[in-house]
Amino acid sequence: MLKKYQSLVNEAIPITDYMQWSIEQLTTQQISTITRLEPNINIHGTVYAGSIYAAAMATGWTVLKYWCDNHHYETQLVAAEASIKYLSPVAANFSCHSNIDITAPQYIKLVDRLHIQQSCGYLLDVEVHCNSKVCAILNIQYVFQC
Amino acid sequence: MLKKYQSLVNEAIPITDYMQWSIEQLTTQQISTITRLEPNINIHGTVYAGSIYAAAMATGWTVLKYWCDNHHYETQLVAAEASIKYLSPVAANFSCHSNIDITAPQYIKLVDRLHIQQSCGYLLDVEVHCNSKVCAILNIQYVFQC
Repeated sequence: MLKKYQSLVNEAIPITDYMQWSIEQLTTQQISTITRLEPNINIHGTVYAGSIYAAAMATGWTVLKYWCDNHHYETQLVAAEASIKYLSPVAANFSCHSNIDITAPQYIKLVDRLHIQQSCGYLLDVEVHCNSKVCAILNIQYVFQC
Repeated sequence: MLKKYQSLVNEAIPITDYMQWSIEQLTTQQISTITRLEPNINIHGTVYAGSIYAAAMATGWTVLKYWCDNHHYETQLVAAEASIKYLSPVAANFSCHSNIDITAPQYIKLVDRLHIQQSCGYLLDVEVHCNSKVCAILNIQYVFQC
């Protein structure tokens, strides 16, 4: 299943292949990915801030896509807006982590809306870790378009 | 000079080469860049949201780097946080545009601080255009570290 979703993301967003972004763990509620430093390096020897964002956004997209597929929702997933905080430089391969909180009011609203094939927004957080430290936090407002 | 800064950015942030990001116009106060659809495409046939962000961020970094170099400031330019709004899908090659407003209070503060070699924040906007339409707006909080 990991291989299937790895291929799916690399085909859906080919730059993830160049970035050496890969899925480590994926369930319908959580995801962890690893991205390699080398293709994403900048002049400071750390990961380019734009690559951190792109890797985290691909991570968020993947867990929501997998969740959709598992629940057989016919919907298109697009990003409406996002904000990111860079807390610490990323000087090595880094991981991205995200969870879907199924107890949150926005989750219950999402399920209700998708059941009646109505579009709905969903705010997802993705944490970027490197060397046991949280280095960035991305908040993405996705829209499930029906 | 464009060629020099094109090479400088491609070396500083190698993923800009893969993305086919290139400088069209660069002065100490403004920049325009073009990024090609093909390496940044997603499953919808439009530009991946992460690539839009990465291209816009490289654009902002470049105009501030050029401004710094021209003013001979010894400083390191890093992104502290950013937010982006996606207004419309980007279905072709796209351009990024940014201006440094030299009449703004934050510009006057920046110059004052850098003259005494003190670190300072600076908020820059980058607009993403495609087919004569504004498709995204990125706000980046940079820090000039002394």
